[in-house]
Amino acid sequence: MKIGLLQCNLVSNDIEGNAEILYRALVGAAAAGAELGVASELALCGCPATGELRRRAFVERCRFALTDLAGRIQKEDLPPLLLGAPVANPVPQGKPLHNCSVLLRGGKSMVISRKVLLAADGTHDDYYYFESGSACGVLQFQGWRFAVAVGEDVWNDRGLWRGRRDYDSDPLEEFMIGGADAVINLTGIPFSRDGLQRHQKVLSWAAGKYHVPVVAVNQIGGMDSSIYPGGSMVFNNGGDLCARAALFAEDVLVVDLNSLQPCGTPCPASGGKREPEEDIWNALVLGVRDFAHKCGFGRAVLGLSGGMDSALVAAIAAEALGSGNVLGIMLPSPYSSAGSIDDSLALAANLDLETLSIPIRPGLEAIDSMLAGSFAGKEADVTEENIQARLRALILMAFSNKFGLMLLNTGNKSEAAMGYCTLYGDSAGALGVISDLYKTEVYALAEWLNRKRGREVIPRAIIEKAPSAELRPEQKDSDSLPEYPLLDAILRACLDEGCDEAELVARGFDVALARKILCLFRKAEFKRRQSPPGLYVSGCALGQGDRRPIAAVFK
Amino acid sequence: MKIGLLQCNLVSNDIEGNAEILYRALVGAAAAGAELGVASELALCGCPATGELRRRAFVERCRFALTDLAGRIQKEDLPPLLLGAPVANPVPQGKPLHNCSVLLRGGKSMVISRKVLLAADGTHDDYYYFESGSACGVLQFQGWRFAVAVGEDVWNDRGLWRGRRDYDSDPLEEFMIGGADAVINLTGIPFSRDGLQRHQKVLSWAAGKYHVPVVAVNQIGGMDSSIYPGGSMVFNNGGDLCARAALFAEDVLVVDLNSLQPCGTPCPASGGKREPEEDIWNALVLGVRDFAHKCGFGRAVLGLSGGMDSALVAAIAAEALGSGNVLGIMLPSPYSSAGSIDDSLALAANLDLETLSIPIRPGLEAIDSMLAGSFAGKEADVTEENIQARLRALILMAFSNKFGLMLLNTGNKSEAAMGYCTLYGDSAGALGVISDLYKTEVYALAEWLNRKRGREVIPRAIIEKAPSAELRPEQKDSDSLPEYPLLDAILRACLDEGCDEAELVARGFDVALARKILCLFRKAEFKRRQSPPGLYVSGCALGQGDRRPIAAVFK
Repeated sequence: MKIGLLQCNLVSNDIEGNAEILYRALVGAAAAGAELGVASELALCGCPATGELRRRAFVERCRFALTDLAGRIQKEDLPPLLLGAPVANPVPQGKPLHNCSVLLRGGKSMVISRKVLLAADGTHDDYYYFESGSACGVLQFQGWRFAVAVGEDVWNDRGLWRGRRDYDSDPLEEFMIGGADAVINLTGIPFSRDGLQRHQKVLSWAAGKYHVPVVAVNQIGGMDSSIYPGGSMVFNNGGDLCARAALFAEDVLVVDLNSLQPCGTPCPASGGKREPEEDIWNALVLGVRDFAHKCGFGRAVLGLSGGMDSALVAAIAAEALGSGNVLGIMLPSPYSSAGSIDDSLALAANLDLETLSIPIRPGLEAIDSMLAGSFAGKEADVTEENIQARLRALILMAFSNKFGLMLLNTGNKSEAAMGYCTLYGDSAGALGVISDLYKTEVYALAEWLNRKRGREVIPRAIIEKAPSAELRPEQKDSDSLPEYPLLDAILRACLDEGCDEAELVARGFDVALARKILCLFRKAEFKRRQSPPGLYVSGCALGQGDRRPIAAVFK
Repeated sequence: MKIGLLQCNLVSNDIEGNAEILYRALVGAAAAGAELGVASELALCGCPATGELRRRAFVERCRFALTDLAGRIQKEDLPPLLLGAPVANPVPQGKPLHNCSVLLRGGKSMVISRKVLLAADGTHDDYYYFESGSACGVLQFQGWRFAVAVGEDVWNDRGLWRGRRDYDSDPLEEFMIGGADAVINLTGIPFSRDGLQRHQKVLSWAAGKYHVPVVAVNQIGGMDSSIYPGGSMVFNNGGDLCARAALFAEDVLVVDLNSLQPCGTPCPASGGKREPEEDIWNALVLGVRDFAHKCGFGRAVLGLSGGMDSALVAAIAAEALGSGNVLGIMLPSPYSSAGSIDDSLALAANLDLETLSIPIRPGLEAIDSMLAGSFAGKEADVTEENIQARLRALILMAFSNKFGLMLLNTGNKSEAAMGYCTLYGDSAGALGVISDLYKTEVYALAEWLNRKRGREVIPRAIIEKAPSAELRPEQKDSDSLPEYPLLDAILRACLDEGCDEAELVARGFDVALARKILCLFRKAEFKRRQSPPGLYVSGCALGQGDRRPIAAVFK
């Protein structure tokens, strides 16, 4: 039984385009001998589900596309295709759709299973669109009895989770009482730092527990904030990884379930020995490339401050879009150090980027003159600092508008958490490239990049200088915030692990500092709410999934 | 049996503050003879649920506050209090919380019911936090047997909905098989144009169907985008409305269930004869006031363009915060008409607002000079228009920063839908005051205001001039968009009713126009994603609840 895993880079809501992509992948799999093609969760419209699913006409287009693709597969004598798609709920109560696995065979489309355990994790809002199904489905094919599960339906095994399980039922376990020869799992699991290993563990566990092969097909590609890593996997009935599709790239993998051989350790396909930074780097490069291309941008612009954040974003953008497609603009003010320009030029030379320098003093002086009457007698304060940041954003957006360049935002997670950024200033941009990396992770990724390339891509001067917004003379980030290693340790505890003040103190952090940081974090929600979408890599990004009030009591 | 309906204006996440507010309301109800106090859904932490609920320490604080309040109620011999609160799920699987009704009595807190039908409507994301309960609860008190239901648990009656019901079970119906003497419903239902009537219909239906009185306590107050209208209600066993708490204001209403008398028609409390604009106006005023005050702002600033949108927002802000607390800034460019300044001054005189005028030409000229080299040989285009809008935002934000004023955003829903606004320009602000009103609704509300006040609050010149962004000579909105009545008719069909191109055409709209508008709508998601939170009044606002992709195919 040869199965083709169709790991495709789909486009959100592009039903007909996605059907074409899936068709071509199926043709490729058939040429390699596949008897059955399997695609990912909601492959027809792309994961995650979006508001279009609430339109009748969109669902109707999905239905039509399934019928059309089924006809094409039959006509060209291709193997059957099992794929994820939204399908109308036939019952007149509950949400109007199911998140289904659908088999296209013999010119017809047939629902095999309806996802039972709906996702509500901030990125995926299944409950907003879908009614829960009642069980995994069965696919009888050439003497094999496959258990077919969508997404989380294989994830809730009681043996897997030490603490609380997310759901109170286990659809796979219930199904397997009746037995199956293999499990097929259609997923759309976005990348996160620990996600690849967890995904592998869950599938390996299921294969080992039920003594059957497991085939899991995951989506690949950037979808706004979410980066789907691919890495589709096949396990034998002992739970050993036997094959893995490419990470962060499209792939069609054909595997014979009758002759599965463990990859060995380290499995070359699993790449278990990679440094963690490599996955983060590849994820961000893919995220930038897909966001730009799917938005219709071939080129990007960013402000080069001479600091660490813009340096790393420039390197990622150069890799994602090509050096010739990235413009770096230096916007020195009277407070910028000479080093900032030199360091930016050195970076641009290392990356082979085009640069421009536009001193902002003329604009600042004009704006000062416009405000002089109203601000007479007032001390300079954060207002004047923000004006610099906003004037820079205005200039960068002018380049974006005039030349059709996508503005890349260079803010990091530590700044976003603390509100250490200017709304409509350095917080501007189409995409937050490193907005889910703490500052210490930004440094680690830059160091990794230099190591990996075996040369100084990010100049050492940039890595070694004290971080500064350079919005007033001699300013340092550490004037306002603790040093980043300490700040990030607190932020990790409170954002990644949910610690509150008492728990931070119990871990040895200073009580006044813990309180200040929690308070700054809550107060900065208004900035985060208006920040660009950012690429998610942590599994707990600040952003859409992290719903917090703006008007609230901060204590 | 005298019940006190405690309709309180709570603050998101302010557990201890909310407990104090509820305590005082209970004291008031007791003084008026109440034997039992009832508060709204999640009263302890405020509706809607937010990310803080995912922190262990926050849930622990909720538990402690319930115990503390129970002790205080016992000590002071106050009547028992039934309130909504998050409570830990005792089962080690499923989400870690339940959305509960909790009784504080005899110094103890006791869970009465766990919400069964969880909300996933874009504003409320119950599934993200709560595990579903299994049934409505029972409260035996002084010989009465009360059915206690949280939120949607009374909403899913099969007789109520002609089309699809949102859920496939009806907890109230299941409970009422065992009978009850009355139903108590704790809710947090935000205002929407048709919501008040629907809410009344649902409750009246339940009272009539089960022949029991129904007591429903709703939250009041602005919570970021959501405006809870209050309007708590009591129905007799015939389904007649017998008492209604204030709309858009705090209220403690004590009602004797033994002697319920229908209000008559029109019920003075229900205010059934109000013009719809009055509710919208009151909702927006409350929304602005609560957002500002709960954020710690007493004063606001906005740009006065001489157009309809900023005029209406100025009027709302003056009502919400007091005329003396609103600063209107005129920012004329070389393209501004003389009329714009005169009309803004007339408006400010009508509203008794302080104004300033800051011509933006000096800044524009400096910015032009900064860009001259890079833009040499390029035609003027939207870039230069955006620079004006962004320079205005920069100046307004400088006033916000320097004087601690909240910047009010003046964009409307028609513009937001079409992307007819400048990101980081006129799209800036802390709060979108009229972002959920179509342009034609903006006019209707202005006309209503002038009628209601019996004088020209919004100058007729502003109402009657052709809408223009005044970003280039002789520019009119209708150069880029269809006239607003036509545009809004299409937008209503496609946003409020989910029509797609074919359905728009079937309704008689031009196919090319329908296609253009749908395409512009989808393409503008990137601007909406970075827009300020806006006050929701339509029940289908563009924003947080309306999840759409940015990088997608737009057709």
